[in-house]
Amino acid sequence: MNNTGHLIGVKDMTKEQLVQLLTRAAYWAERPGEQANVLHGRFVANLFFEASTRTRFSFEVAQKRLGAHVLNFIPETSSAVKGETVYDTIKTLEAMGVEAAVIRTKKEGLLQELATSVDLQLINAGDGTNEHPTQCLLDLLTMKQQFGRLDGLTVAIIGDLRHSRVLGSHLHAMPKLGIKLLLSGPTSMMPQPAQIPNGVRIVGMDEAMQTADVVMMLRVQLERHTESLYISKEEYHQAHGLTLDRAKSMKPGAVIMHPAPVNRGVEIHTDLVESPISLIQKQVTNGVAARMAVLETLLKGSELKWEPSLVTANY
Amino acid sequence: MNNTGHLIGVKDMTKEQLVQLLTRAAYWAERPGEQANVLHGRFVANLFFEASTRTRFSFEVAQKRLGAHVLNFIPETSSAVKGETVYDTIKTLEAMGVEAAVIRTKKEGLLQELATSVDLQLINAGDGTNEHPTQCLLDLLTMKQQFGRLDGLTVAIIGDLRHSRVLGSHLHAMPKLGIKLLLSGPTSMMPQPAQIPNGVRIVGMDEAMQTADVVMMLRVQLERHTESLYISKEEYHQAHGLTLDRAKSMKPGAVIMHPAPVNRGVEIHTDLVESPISLIQKQVTNGVAARMAVLETLLKGSELKWEPSLVTANY
Amino acid sequence: MNNTGHLIGVKDMTKEQLVQLLTRAAYWAERPGEQANVLHGRFVANLFFEASTRTRFSFEVAQKRLGAHVLNFIPETSSAVKGETVYDTIKTLEAMGVEAAVIRTKKEGLLQELATSVDLQLINAGDGTNEHPTQCLLDLLTMKQQFGRLDGLTVAIIGDLRHSRVLGSHLHAMPKLGIKLLLSGPTSMMPQPAQIPNGVRIVGMDEAMQTADVVMMLRVQLERHTESLYISKEEYHQAHGLTLDRAKSMKPGAVIMHPAPVNRGVEIHTDLVESPISLIQKQVTNGVAARMAVLETLLKGSELKWEPSLVTANY
Repeated sequence: MNNTGHLIGVKDMTKEQLVQLLTRAAYWAERPGEQANVLHGRFVANLFFEASTRTRFSFEVAQKRLGAHVLNFIPETSSAVKGETVYDTIKTLEAMGVEAAVIRTKKEGLLQELATSVDLQLINAGDGTNEHPTQCLLDLLTMKQQFGRLDGLTVAIIGDLRHSRVLGSHLHAMPKLGIKLLLSGPTSMMPQPAQIPNGVRIVGMDEAMQTADVVMMLRVQLERHTESLYISKEEYHQAHGLTLDRAKSMKPGAVIMHPAPVNRGVEIHTDLVESPISLIQKQVTNGVAARMAVLETLLKGSELKWEPSLVTANY
Repeated sequence: MNNTGHLIGVKDMTKEQLVQLLTRAAYWAERPGEQANVLHGRFVANLFFEASTRTRFSFEVAQKRLGAHVLNFIPETSSAVKGETVYDTIKTLEAMGVEAAVIRTKKEGLLQELATSVDLQLINAGDGTNEHPTQCLLDLLTMKQQFGRLDGLTVAIIGDLRHSRVLGSHLHAMPKLGIKLLLSGPTSMMPQPAQIPNGVRIVGMDEAMQTADVVMMLRVQLERHTESLYISKEEYHQAHGLTLDRAKSMKPGAVIMHPAPVNRGVEIHTDLVESPISLIQKQVTNGVAARMAVLETLLKGSELKWEPSLVTANY
Repeated sequence: MNNTGHLIGVKDMTKEQLVQLLTRAAYWAERPGEQANVLHGRFVANLFFEASTRTRFSFEVAQKRLGAHVLNFIPETSSAVKGETVYDTIKTLEAMGVEAAVIRTKKEGLLQELATSVDLQLINAGDGTNEHPTQCLLDLLTMKQQFGRLDGLTVAIIGDLRHSRVLGSHLHAMPKLGIKLLLSGPTSMMPQPAQIPNGVRIVGMDEAMQTADVVMMLRVQLERHTESLYISKEEYHQAHGLTLDRAKSMKPGAVIMHPAPVNRGVEIHTDLVESPISLIQKQVTNGVAARMAVLETLLKGSELKWEPSLVTANY
């Protein structure tokens, strides 16, 4: 969605582009299970170089609901084992008529690097600890559904901030949309100060609980920690997790979100995951709608008829 | 197909439910290769936590012939590697709009445990050594086609009974349908006595050969034996296998069945696998029809128009 | 495409059969992205026992553009891990209604061995170092598009000839079509003399460059070398690779081809891969058309209406 047409990151997107995508995502969210044929007979490929359940299948459901043909690239059984680069793989798929590639990779910046040299549409499904733009969109869609607006909301993102590509996208999106963003978590998991935009504040757990409309807990990404953690899961839960007690101190009307998968009992008490104030399942549901909006916009772009009133209003 | 609507096991099914499914399976078996659109645009997922060829692809063929969208979950590339539970995986798929999950797992009882807490339809594709209900259905369909009836047939199931989830289902199904069931095999591979219902007899190989209408050989499941076998493959074949000599002693009109994959030369002589009295390939063919019936019934249930005469007659 | 109907190798094909397939491949090449329904509702399976990106996905794109249902068999998650043979796997798929199996295997001769005992259509996607007939077809299609004819062309195939199944097919195809074939490469990588038909000449790099209309570089297949190579990548590039200097000595109008994946900087200079005289991307694009032609012909064979004029003219 930047100048080259791909969806690499929220960093390069305008507020208007975000609102356009959110408006279209809301359109699909109102049509659960509808089989569309917007992309009938067109090919998209999913290239996941890291494990995934929800992002992978959410994209596949979105692609199939739009009528597209889906190719699932599994690195272990591909020419990647013969040393073929991602660039050469993408060019190969492009030559076959594949029009979009959804990529998850450990290597941040890889998609930005590929963006100017490939003709198919790149969609970032998570690049290292950099960005995860479709997760950001589905989070925003979920908040908009819940509160009717985004402007003026207070969101606290809590936990393993340093390794979070979800945070990486929200740091760019929320300020553009008038959302007040608070961060909380252990010092060792804080993002680099240079990454934190003006206006985003680091707060303690108490302030986060008492002021946030949305308490967004992040997964402790043990697989990305190069040193072992020096506290137990239970200690982490007590110090930085969403305990039952902390949940009671949340503002009336406030909700819990989490990009999942959840470490039950670590960053969040297991009883809260499916509690009435949790939107975690709703986030997964909205993931399909958000990804349908992205795929449709990238592949049908100019043909879409936007409702100008929807695009500008109410965000 | 129990009270919660899933297909967990034959244990919980009535004779009437079995006959309903068999009747519908026979319907699809008469329409080989027909492309139906009964489940057009609907999503089903296959989650195989153990290796499989025939069950996996049989379900996928069934799903695609019914017009469903298919998601193939591969544990190794999913969030299962980040520690996500099967429950959380199922809830995730459910939130995306997936309406049925076909699950194969090492952990018996897992599906029963999930049954009350998920909203999508669970289909057991084999849980440990417990049950394998769709294999049971396809076996029964094959016998019905061959003999025109099930009531009054004598079936001998022979071999590695202790580790067989196919037996686990047949122990419940056959008595309900009036089939006389004989068991034979090495003592070390016998089921626990408590598992064997009244009326099911343990017999020697000679009696099994001479009295059974159906000689159903089971695969020696080397991968489930915790101790090594103390006899060679050849010794096993001579003592408990279907040798060429034993096949000659079978009743006129009797047939050979096997859930496959076959260990040629171990539980069955290689020349018998594709012999005229073997229904092994037919079983695989019928697997598609049986699974179409299960998927259709679970997902379209009340809309199906049963032919009452077919349901009650001739079984 | 031999007497048993499969596509095992070019060795068994007549010039007329090759031209028929090339004519149909050209038909599909002129319809990029067209969604056909020639094989609507029919099942084909891909069984890749070796890693692949372009052949695997090229077949899948071809299958889906023809409207077929696709089953992707992954050996690691199948009953192959329980010891099931490829023969039993194929018979299983056949029993389910699968009509064609695309197979890549390390074991040369395996498909020939299976050909007389299975009823579905076998398609060789590379068997050891023996043949790779669809790669051969797409190469020929690409040359025909470029030069308007095949008869009378001079093609130099250069590099790791001994391990090349692409060469294995071209050794049979090119002489039948009037193409003059030159081979060049290190002595240790030369095919066995008995494999080289009359009329095919081994030449030095200089003669290859100066006389070939098509310079076809082969990948050094490090994974098939049982002894380590005694020269560095750079030494190989200087001695036997397509360097920038050598490319300058090519005939006016000559083109570069490569079956890919490419070892950039080894058999070919990286700058030449996407240069104006390279047809490497075009080859990938044509792979879809060639495979559509093969699948359509094997599964719809006699129903196809050939244009006799096209079949006989201009090759």
